[in-house]
Amino acid sequence: MSHTVEILSVGTELLLGNIANTDAQMLSQGLSELGLNVFWHTVVGDNPQRAREAVALAKSRADIIITTGGLGPTCDDLTKNVLAEAFGKQLVFDEGSAQRIRTYFQRIGRTMTDNNLQQAMLPEGCTVLENDWGTAPGCAFEAEGVHVIMLPGPPSECRPMFQYRARPYLLSLSEGVIASHTIKLFGIGESTMEAQLREQMNAMTNPTLAPYAKEGECELRVTAKAATDREAQDLLQPTVEQMKQLFRDKVYGVDVPSLEYVVLEGLKDKGLTLGTAESCTGGLMAKRLTDVPGASQAFKGGIVSYANEVKQNVLRVPEHLLSQFGAVSSEVAAAMAAGARQVLGCDVALSSTGVAGPDRDENGNEVGTMFVAIATPEGTHVRALRLGARPVRERLRTQTASHAFDLARRYLSGLDYGSGT
Amino acid sequence: MSHTVEILSVGTELLLGNIANTDAQMLSQGLSELGLNVFWHTVVGDNPQRAREAVALAKSRADIIITTGGLGPTCDDLTKNVLAEAFGKQLVFDEGSAQRIRTYFQRIGRTMTDNNLQQAMLPEGCTVLENDWGTAPGCAFEAEGVHVIMLPGPPSECRPMFQYRARPYLLSLSEGVIASHTIKLFGIGESTMEAQLREQMNAMTNPTLAPYAKEGECELRVTAKAATDREAQDLLQPTVEQMKQLFRDKVYGVDVPSLEYVVLEGLKDKGLTLGTAESCTGGLMAKRLTDVPGASQAFKGGIVSYANEVKQNVLRVPEHLLSQFGAVSSEVAAAMAAGARQVLGCDVALSSTGVAGPDRDENGNEVGTMFVAIATPEGTHVRALRLGARPVRERLRTQTASHAFDLARRYLSGLDYGSGT
Repeated sequence: MSHTVEILSVGTELLLGNIANTDAQMLSQGLSELGLNVFWHTVVGDNPQRAREAVALAKSRADIIITTGGLGPTCDDLTKNVLAEAFGKQLVFDEGSAQRIRTYFQRIGRTMTDNNLQQAMLPEGCTVLENDWGTAPGCAFEAEGVHVIMLPGPPSECRPMFQYRARPYLLSLSEGVIASHTIKLFGIGESTMEAQLREQMNAMTNPTLAPYAKEGECELRVTAKAATDREAQDLLQPTVEQMKQLFRDKVYGVDVPSLEYVVLEGLKDKGLTLGTAESCTGGLMAKRLTDVPGASQAFKGGIVSYANEVKQNVLRVPEHLLSQFGAVSSEVAAAMAAGARQVLGCDVALSSTGVAGPDRDENGNEVGTMFVAIATPEGTHVRALRLGARPVRERLRTQTASHAFDLARRYLSGLDYGSGT
Repeated sequence: MSHTVEILSVGTELLLGNIANTDAQMLSQGLSELGLNVFWHTVVGDNPQRAREAVALAKSRADIIITTGGLGPTCDDLTKNVLAEAFGKQLVFDEGSAQRIRTYFQRIGRTMTDNNLQQAMLPEGCTVLENDWGTAPGCAFEAEGVHVIMLPGPPSECRPMFQYRARPYLLSLSEGVIASHTIKLFGIGESTMEAQLREQMNAMTNPTLAPYAKEGECELRVTAKAATDREAQDLLQPTVEQMKQLFRDKVYGVDVPSLEYVVLEGLKDKGLTLGTAESCTGGLMAKRLTDVPGASQAFKGGIVSYANEVKQNVLRVPEHLLSQFGAVSSEVAAAMAAGARQVLGCDVALSSTGVAGPDRDENGNEVGTMFVAIATPEGTHVRALRLGARPVRERLRTQTASHAFDLARRYLSGLDYGSGT
């Protein structure tokens, strides 16, 4: 039987436009991967009557209802109350959840108020979805042929709660297994990739091939459905290999979390250390590297040289390069990387300098003019980028950091440095 | 009469999670500002039957329906067909729109296909909303007491189409204005804040008061409705003042974008410069500061000293402090801030050191043990934090960086440093 899903989000902040409904996006992606059809997203505010109507409608047309939000004390646990009522269930006190909430507050050293304990009231007979990322537990139950799953609203809780709590529950509802591999690419546009694959994608049914673009990178997801994982893997493997052949050095990994992760793994494999020297990316390269747990095994540190005097005094960029070529130049990018390598005492150093906007720099360089460089025991290489002024500041910085990481992963894999496009 | 709005988005890409529904967020913000109540967001795919049902429902409960998406040739102009049908209207050829589409293709040098001209078929008697940002025109009509506005889906078209086409149309429908102020707080939990305000919040009708939590910070939004902006402001001001009195030094600003923004503004006001020395936050403080356009006027740079040798060699933290107290200690946090101040040549320096996880450090410090410090011309101050191991790594790092910024804004405002809770 094929399941139909409605995602029902409860929160006035969504209707006021304070936040975008990224929970619904994240859930839709995850549910699609499980082979579950999401047919509706609905958002209502913290309003009992409209929430009741939305639940009644969802119950009439979907056989899986996933709710986000409305679980905390600030909305009187609206979602739980309305869902319990719709399915004729009582809310009962769950001592295990209460204990977890008490412990949470002890650990963060904050005072717990009575309304926090309300969160431990859950529909009778439900499966408690323990929340290790916040206070409000989620829950799941089946009644009248409908599966109901309630998740907290904050994205930092909703995401792991789906991944580690709801997903395993839902896996048991889908027949057979769905397996997928994600091929990660850097340096190719989504539309170019899609144009190359369109005919093949349309002709494929199992496995399927789907392209995604995000943050200046591309992903190709290959998904197969079969009776066993082994059979699914056998279906996937030829397509994965074919894609690796087709896109060659644009592929930086399969099923890897990120470009920076691949860089850190490559460094650890070779016993090398890394440092960074950042101007336009302003700490973003270091931040992304240290987002990866265990980064300290290879990443020694970085220097954010926003002011020219920091470039000179800390990174030892010669003054004459700054005055002759300007801070946004190939020469300064190279000197920053070489300086970082020396000052930080690391084997490989990456640097960035450029104009992230909103305005041109004092030398008239356009927004989006960027240089990234790598310094290694074998020498220095600079990649010049013209990313254009259309992307917003944040995206320009993200792309620039990714280009620097691309230099590092190419060095570590013995590939030529390429042009990045 | 008070209007109720439903935003109906049509697009399978939303249900697959390929994109978030940022159109709905943008529209909700804009509509709230106009004093129009958005009660529902609905998303359906490119499916005629479900689109018909969604339109019938919207027509029954809202008196303004705004649609996004489903106007282009790839979905057979689903939205226009379904809405026209629901209100018993024919689609008729609009020569003005056809001419604009032809001109658009000439300008971008692409070949126009016949299905592009389909976009010039519009509901009879509608107001055409000319699209200067893409090809599909929008339209608006009133029928059976319901206002219908159709906008294109791509955010780069939807945003200006709302701003310059739909908004003027809607302005004539709204009575009075809605104004709001957002009070930003740091160092208080949402549930504590909410417990203090619950009675008052429930008693208020105009203005209203709503708490929000995000990323370890809290916000209080005060919203008023009145005939003129002036009157709305007069309604808001006493509540804003009252909240500032109530939460005192926890309030870091009103209508300000972020803590780091407030820090940078405070520095610029006083003509002071800032630097950072980061261990556990690994570049996040510098990244957040440089996310703010114009940060370079006050932020000179930072050092990410992930390895101890970088703490010693670059930040000049004395070796004996590291060996005696360990890298995660109040003493090392203070020495890092003082070192950064000297090395970077800045007036104020912030530092962080701690255990962001996933594991304890080699000295047995628990995950969530953090120290942030500030060095100023007047001396050094350290804040010790126990954030607990439950929040994910990213959140621990975000909170730690925010605590460091909190020290800076307290210094710049002449407040005592406080405990951060």
